[in-house]
Amino acid sequence: MSQDLPKIGILTISDRATRGDYEDLSGPAIQAALEDYLATPCRFERRLVMDEVPDISAALRSFASEGCALICSTGGTGPAPRDVTPEAMEQVCHKMLPGFGELMRKASLDAGVPTAILSRQTAGILERSLVVNLPGKPGSIRTCLDAIFPAVPYCIDLIGGPYLEGDPQVVQVFRPRKK
Amino acid sequence: MSQDLPKIGILTISDRATRGDYEDLSGPAIQAALEDYLATPCRFERRLVMDEVPDISAALRSFASEGCALICSTGGTGPAPRDVTPEAMEQVCHKMLPGFGELMRKASLDAGVPTAILSRQTAGILERSLVVNLPGKPGSIRTCLDAIFPAVPYCIDLIGGPYLEGDPQVVQVFRPRKK
Amino acid sequence: MSQDLPKIGILTISDRATRGDYEDLSGPAIQAALEDYLATPCRFERRLVMDEVPDISAALRSFASEGCALICSTGGTGPAPRDVTPEAMEQVCHKMLPGFGELMRKASLDAGVPTAILSRQTAGILERSLVVNLPGKPGSIRTCLDAIFPAVPYCIDLIGGPYLEGDPQVVQVFRPRKK
Repeated sequence: MSQDLPKIGILTISDRATRGDYEDLSGPAIQAALEDYLATPCRFERRLVMDEVPDISAALRSFASEGCALICSTGGTGPAPRDVTPEAMEQVCHKMLPGFGELMRKASLDAGVPTAILSRQTAGILERSLVVNLPGKPGSIRTCLDAIFPAVPYCIDLIGGPYLEGDPQVVQVFRPRKK
Repeated sequence: MSQDLPKIGILTISDRATRGDYEDLSGPAIQAALEDYLATPCRFERRLVMDEVPDISAALRSFASEGCALICSTGGTGPAPRDVTPEAMEQVCHKMLPGFGELMRKASLDAGVPTAILSRQTAGILERSLVVNLPGKPGSIRTCLDAIFPAVPYCIDLIGGPYLEGDPQVVQVFRPRKK
Repeated sequence: MSQDLPKIGILTISDRATRGDYEDLSGPAIQAALEDYLATPCRFERRLVMDEVPDISAALRSFASEGCALICSTGGTGPAPRDVTPEAMEQVCHKMLPGFGELMRKASLDAGVPTAILSRQTAGILERSLVVNLPGKPGSIRTCLDAIFPAVPYCIDLIGGPYLEGDPQVVQVFRPRKK
């Protein structure tokens, strides 16, 4: 029954997409990438919010309380005045995982995007959810997800979430052997 | 009229240079590098302060309120007791950009300086100014600026500053295409 | 007299090792690596604590007040609920050195461990001690220490500690020339 499947929340953070000024392409791009990686069937839920800290915080908390193992956001991580996703992350996450941001910026730099250093993308733990910020641009999402996804299922194991398996044809999910 | 040119502030943070124990070579080295990169004529303003949080904070705020698009500091980013530049940054900046510090440390490591990991260099946004911390040593300044400068003009665009062009013979300034 | 030798504290942070559920292999692995690197004879002191912020904080403060030049911890840096080493670090250190965590995660990634991005390892300054977090797994400790050790003696110089020399057959300790 689909109610029992692991749940993944996708949050598009964008004033313009929320107002309907343009179509949200980023949320669907994240879902497509995750469906491609995962061998375990999952239930996806996508939402849109404005670039406002209270809206973003409320949406992240709501996804976490609904039991999402993974929450991916897109947008709002740059230096512009309306970019406030990291401020919401600091407010709601009880642990920050700086290695995600480091590796995503490095992957984007290696892909030939020198402005990757402007991104304040990070990841953190909120209750039993792993929250990962992705870029706003659909074209950059896959670069970042490809870099970090191999570590995502083991992180979800460590915080008490469902056991997710990757499709070995697409991604090499890594779980260290026990010491 | 030079009053209308984009303004760049350069802050040398050093007890000894401020007291006149030695000549400030770092501030002029930063100005020389930026004049080399930039095709857009700019006005430069250089100041010196002691390694004290209130002095550094006041100088950064002053440059920002005078409309500097870019503020570069040199010195005070190490682990020694008198190194307090990052503490002043945390106090005055409303957004931190960790990707700058990551890339500058990587560039210094790649240049054969293993002690680059001791640097607490960062960058941040203060009002409508981009503030970037550079090393205190003149010889390391160019290594760090070469690494991060391609992303600087676009960052200044995003925070509402003047449009700066680089000299393509010297540096490849990068502006992503709109999505 | 051994009382006058530079002192190094090693803190194993592990519920199970502290309760005696298994033998602490990580603390001794750190000591073995440091003895291998160092040409200067040092006195080592090893302790174990549970994964609790107050216990970790107290142990770090105690090592610092006893004059340890270097304190290495192992364990407690992941995203799991009982992993709280970084929270204790934030509480006791007055300066954080993000370059250590960045380089240790990169070294582990380069060694083929994609889950290195889950580590929240960092380093910081506590009074006149350099505190460095290492992984909990004995097999990953040497990878991380090899990466950062060349910068450790100079950091200890900068915070007023003893002059430590490395064994040039084992490690290339780096001290920049004065400007």
